[in-house]
Amino acid sequence: MDDPLARFFNARGVALVGASAQPTKLSYGVLQNLIRSGYPGPIYPVHPRGGEILGLPVYRSLAEVPDPVELAILMVPAEQSLEVLEACGRRGIRAVILVASGFAERGDEGREREEQLRAVARRYGMRFIGPNAVGLIDTRIPLNTTFIHVQPEPGSIGLVSHSGAVCGGILDWGASMGIGFSRVISLGNQADVDLADALCSLALDPSTRVVGAYVEGIRDGRRFLEAASAVSARKPLVILKAGRTPDGARAVASHTGALALPERIFQAVARYTGAILVDHLEAFMDAMLALAMQPALPGARVVILTNAGGPGAVGADHLARYELRLADLQPSTQERLQAVAPRGTMVGNPVDLLGGPQPEHYARALHTLLEAPEVDAVMTIFVPQAVTPAREVAAAIGEVAAGSPRPVVGVIFGGETALEAARVLHQASVPGFPTPCRAAFALGVLHQWAKIRQGRCEPLEPARPLNPSKAVSQLLEARRQGKRVLDPQAGAELAAAWGLPVPPSGLAATPEEAVALAERLGYPVALKRIAPGLIHKSRAGGVALNLKGAHEVRDAFIQLIHPEEQALIQRMAPPGVEVIIGAYRDPLFGPVVMFGAGGVEVEALEDVTFRLPPLTRMEARVMLEETWIGRRLLQRDRKGGSEEIEALTDILKRVGQMMLEHPEIAEIDLNPVIVARPGEGVHAVDVRIVLSETVPAPAEAAALV
Amino acid sequence: MDDPLARFFNARGVALVGASAQPTKLSYGVLQNLIRSGYPGPIYPVHPRGGEILGLPVYRSLAEVPDPVELAILMVPAEQSLEVLEACGRRGIRAVILVASGFAERGDEGREREEQLRAVARRYGMRFIGPNAVGLIDTRIPLNTTFIHVQPEPGSIGLVSHSGAVCGGILDWGASMGIGFSRVISLGNQADVDLADALCSLALDPSTRVVGAYVEGIRDGRRFLEAASAVSARKPLVILKAGRTPDGARAVASHTGALALPERIFQAVARYTGAILVDHLEAFMDAMLALAMQPALPGARVVILTNAGGPGAVGADHLARYELRLADLQPSTQERLQAVAPRGTMVGNPVDLLGGPQPEHYARALHTLLEAPEVDAVMTIFVPQAVTPAREVAAAIGEVAAGSPRPVVGVIFGGETALEAARVLHQASVPGFPTPCRAAFALGVLHQWAKIRQGRCEPLEPARPLNPSKAVSQLLEARRQGKRVLDPQAGAELAAAWGLPVPPSGLAATPEEAVALAERLGYPVALKRIAPGLIHKSRAGGVALNLKGAHEVRDAFIQLIHPEEQALIQRMAPPGVEVIIGAYRDPLFGPVVMFGAGGVEVEALEDVTFRLPPLTRMEARVMLEETWIGRRLLQRDRKGGSEEIEALTDILKRVGQMMLEHPEIAEIDLNPVIVARPGEGVHAVDVRIVLSETVPAPAEAAALV
Repeated sequence: MDDPLARFFNARGVALVGASAQPTKLSYGVLQNLIRSGYPGPIYPVHPRGGEILGLPVYRSLAEVPDPVELAILMVPAEQSLEVLEACGRRGIRAVILVASGFAERGDEGREREEQLRAVARRYGMRFIGPNAVGLIDTRIPLNTTFIHVQPEPGSIGLVSHSGAVCGGILDWGASMGIGFSRVISLGNQADVDLADALCSLALDPSTRVVGAYVEGIRDGRRFLEAASAVSARKPLVILKAGRTPDGARAVASHTGALALPERIFQAVARYTGAILVDHLEAFMDAMLALAMQPALPGARVVILTNAGGPGAVGADHLARYELRLADLQPSTQERLQAVAPRGTMVGNPVDLLGGPQPEHYARALHTLLEAPEVDAVMTIFVPQAVTPAREVAAAIGEVAAGSPRPVVGVIFGGETALEAARVLHQASVPGFPTPCRAAFALGVLHQWAKIRQGRCEPLEPARPLNPSKAVSQLLEARRQGKRVLDPQAGAELAAAWGLPVPPSGLAATPEEAVALAERLGYPVALKRIAPGLIHKSRAGGVALNLKGAHEVRDAFIQLIHPEEQALIQRMAPPGVEVIIGAYRDPLFGPVVMFGAGGVEVEALEDVTFRLPPLTRMEARVMLEETWIGRRLLQRDRKGGSEEIEALTDILKRVGQMMLEHPEIAEIDLNPVIVARPGEGVHAVDVRIVLSETVPAPAEAAALV
Repeated sequence: MDDPLARFFNARGVALVGASAQPTKLSYGVLQNLIRSGYPGPIYPVHPRGGEILGLPVYRSLAEVPDPVELAILMVPAEQSLEVLEACGRRGIRAVILVASGFAERGDEGREREEQLRAVARRYGMRFIGPNAVGLIDTRIPLNTTFIHVQPEPGSIGLVSHSGAVCGGILDWGASMGIGFSRVISLGNQADVDLADALCSLALDPSTRVVGAYVEGIRDGRRFLEAASAVSARKPLVILKAGRTPDGARAVASHTGALALPERIFQAVARYTGAILVDHLEAFMDAMLALAMQPALPGARVVILTNAGGPGAVGADHLARYELRLADLQPSTQERLQAVAPRGTMVGNPVDLLGGPQPEHYARALHTLLEAPEVDAVMTIFVPQAVTPAREVAAAIGEVAAGSPRPVVGVIFGGETALEAARVLHQASVPGFPTPCRAAFALGVLHQWAKIRQGRCEPLEPARPLNPSKAVSQLLEARRQGKRVLDPQAGAELAAAWGLPVPPSGLAATPEEAVALAERLGYPVALKRIAPGLIHKSRAGGVALNLKGAHEVRDAFIQLIHPEEQALIQRMAPPGVEVIIGAYRDPLFGPVVMFGAGGVEVEALEDVTFRLPPLTRMEARVMLEETWIGRRLLQRDRKGGSEEIEALTDILKRVGQMMLEHPEIAEIDLNPVIVARPGEGVHAVDVRIVLSETVPAPAEAAALV
């Protein structure tokens, strides 16, 4: 994998087209930032009026700009963008940043204009960022093409954003908190360079330790999946996605012209890629801060070291939300704490140093805790008091925490002195938070990151069909017959070939055949009318259930089956809890597997969860945990029923694998899947398989099996 | 209602016992604060060594202190507290603050010591705050008895806290953000003056516009309910409760020695009192800030006015979490915006002023929006840029927002410039937040406060028994027989007397009686064995269901009913969804009503919710909305079934009223209540009523009906 943005970051010489001499203009700000950042190459302002800005000669046109010039920043109105982009191409510039707005976010005309930009870029082999973008920062080169009014310090956070303002706000926050950045990439409308390019670039950047992505829209789902996975295989990826609600989607559309991504699908996407999905701006910043400065937290046992009981109690409350807990301190650790802490210290957990601890008390207690084997992480809390200066406490904590393999996070609860003390913590790479609530969240993120890395080690063990050739022949036959939906018996046979637990069944054309079949399958049986267009059989009244003998089968056949039609005879499954398992192809992200509660009433409650296949056994089990109905079944599992849980997770894995191996399948719908009483199994009594309208040739499909 | 803390706040003359001349001692900090706060009365440091501190003469003992002295602050070790409290009593001081720790939070010995303090206080008619308390602040008097190192500005937030450090941290935050306070009360272990006293005091304080309470423990539930209700009848009450999780409860116990309050009961308590319950420190501060500065928000239509699309989109996303939405701006409003905003402004909602708006653009756009009838509230967002100073934007917003009857909240997203701009907003009483996420939460709190006030106007219409004398006679009879649990038939009759939908039933001593009864009730019937100690009938195998004729009834009777026992014959209810409705007496807060999902498997999922009676119809309906099973039933309601919803809410109201009117009932358990198919009603097929072991005399109970 090569850095797709290398030509931007490695450019020897930058031209700024549309440079203004007026300090209130944004282009003036860009020139100022380029100079102040310390960019080592030549900088060429370009403006038809010529002259000089900030001590640099202004070129009248791109053609006049001398070598080397490898990157151009276009600060011209939308209407002139095309022409200037063309000029860049002619000048041999292969990397361009377009700042102007007035494109896709303004509707069809703007989208057309973006298409034209792409055409020009293709012609010259150029890549461009934007339009509607604020540009790039790399603190190592250093290079800053933005007009953002703060110059970030070097650090290890790599930020990519569809919103320039989100970059600006976060850089501002970083500057005030003493938090540095490696690279910042503002994508704007991503008409060419997109989120996937930026993620690849940050994945490969050695200075970037954590990647934060503010996401409004995704252009190419598969590329995004690959890029995001590439990041989280190397380093943590934190995503804040806007447009999660109808109102948010409306706001996003008018901002960068992006289409809405269904929220629950995006959760599945995050899960698949190993990204940490957060849901507000504080969480976004806190997660990046924690991951940039501290190691992953595989364990769950936390100690709170505090000078104040109330904030300690609040912190303890918040640990449980993130699957963390207070460590039980061993007597030997408590004794060691007694020896180093002020008289009266409560050496349970929270460890409360009470009113007046000095910096060295924090240092010694923290040191003791970080050496205790029963402790996985420490949250220090300090509420500023008159007698002990906060910054000295912060410095003492930072010194002890430095280099500890166990995470330490700091809380300084208060106002401006707290802010100053947080900066001291950050110098020592201890993330500082204003409240124990946010520090607990940060520890939770470190814990989540450890679990994501663990999950990557889970064996995938792809599900295999029991009878691959049978599966392929069913699909070929349906295709040959020009079907869009497999006949129920064909669907059941395909499912059975893939090892799904479908009750035995067959087709009968006459009452006699029906009875003979029923006798062979064993009573009781269900009889279902097979007729084209009859999809919701039970609603259309074409089903007779629980037929207990020849007489009943014959009667049902005569009553329900019209001339020339056939009946599906199926052995009755035992009664039980109904769930739905399904799969479909998301236009952006490809196959998606779904699990949820069954039954008409429950559908409306949307007790469902989604995943992108392939699924590990563990991941399939987590799907159960995420639904009410699944938790209900897992609960039952404790009293027996683990066989049924195994069967459900197995079906989820198999359905996912079917979607991956048979691109001609558009949709699989197992509705209902009956989870019978413990020991009585799981039964996919109704299988509906829809084929794609545009399918690969059967030969291609066959080759995949 | 009188201010129970009047003697503290109105004290003419304050003695500080244990005053130290060493600036590192906390008592020195207290003296400094007393002086600096500008307390208008005399201040008397007391210490056996005498001398002078901070220019004040030190008295060698309390006896030497001249008049007037009406408040004493004791800064002596725990062991001397009793003796010095006694000295205060002798000196005629009736209001005392005890700062020392080392009491209930240290276990039994400490609890004993608190009991002794109370005894002394009773003897002298004193009230005392603490021990383990930081003291009081009133910015209007002014009076500051704490050692907290910041002096709060006058303002309208009244704060009460079991943790002195929470007070300290919040005052620090307020000082850095330009937020003022009216009163601050640190309660510590509340051995005498408790949360209820402090709440009453803040309810009555005319300078306090919003009350914030950090709660660890509640000593007297009924007094708390009254005090909290008294606050929210007058002004908003925001509560942050610690000890919500087992880890948090453990931390709280070692901090102020408070007992854990079950989380879900406390939610019911908050609901009953009209308090706004928050769950982290940021939310606590943000809610107080919003309520202190802005009016309630009855409507839900919000406009976001921004200079940046990304933060605008994030804000839009967050509105929906708080039942708010983006207002649809009318064409006329959009035209007016076009006329006053910069060229290119997106006049949909969010209203995006794009890159370079000046302060007057914000001012004019905000003015236009506040005049539009389709707008209920405005969130302004500003991301600082090089060209426009944030503080000028803040000032412009503040000027227009001042005095608007519609709430305005501001977001300045960034670092230190943002903090400065937020202070400018606060001067104009516009709450400023660092992110749109928190601003959306703040609007949500204003909306919740409006709904709480609306809810207060809901008609209560207490449920009445159909047959009061029958209800009383059932209870008297059970009491006469010395029963702790009412016999099923007696329970059913009591329930029926209260209008609960119990299926008709009766008792039979012989098979013949059983058949006769069944014929009269109508088939099918259930037959249940009545025997002492047989509580879970279905588990014990003492039930026969769905008996369809005389023969089946006779057989069941012979099989199940032992000699000398009786059978309860009950008309079968139709099948349906099973729910549980119950009530019990919480030792702290009294009667609690419960609604939840039925069935053995579901119990473990704890799909339940609680309320304190009496319930309004609306409140009972909200209980359904809070559970999965309730939402499922409400969903069904859309397709018919509203009769069943009405019946459920009616049962909830009636069960609550039964608990209020019959103090001798300890527990009511309707399990299951069957919600049959639409039109087939709701049926409490099993009624279990437990009587209190310690009951009021029957006469008293009768008088209540």
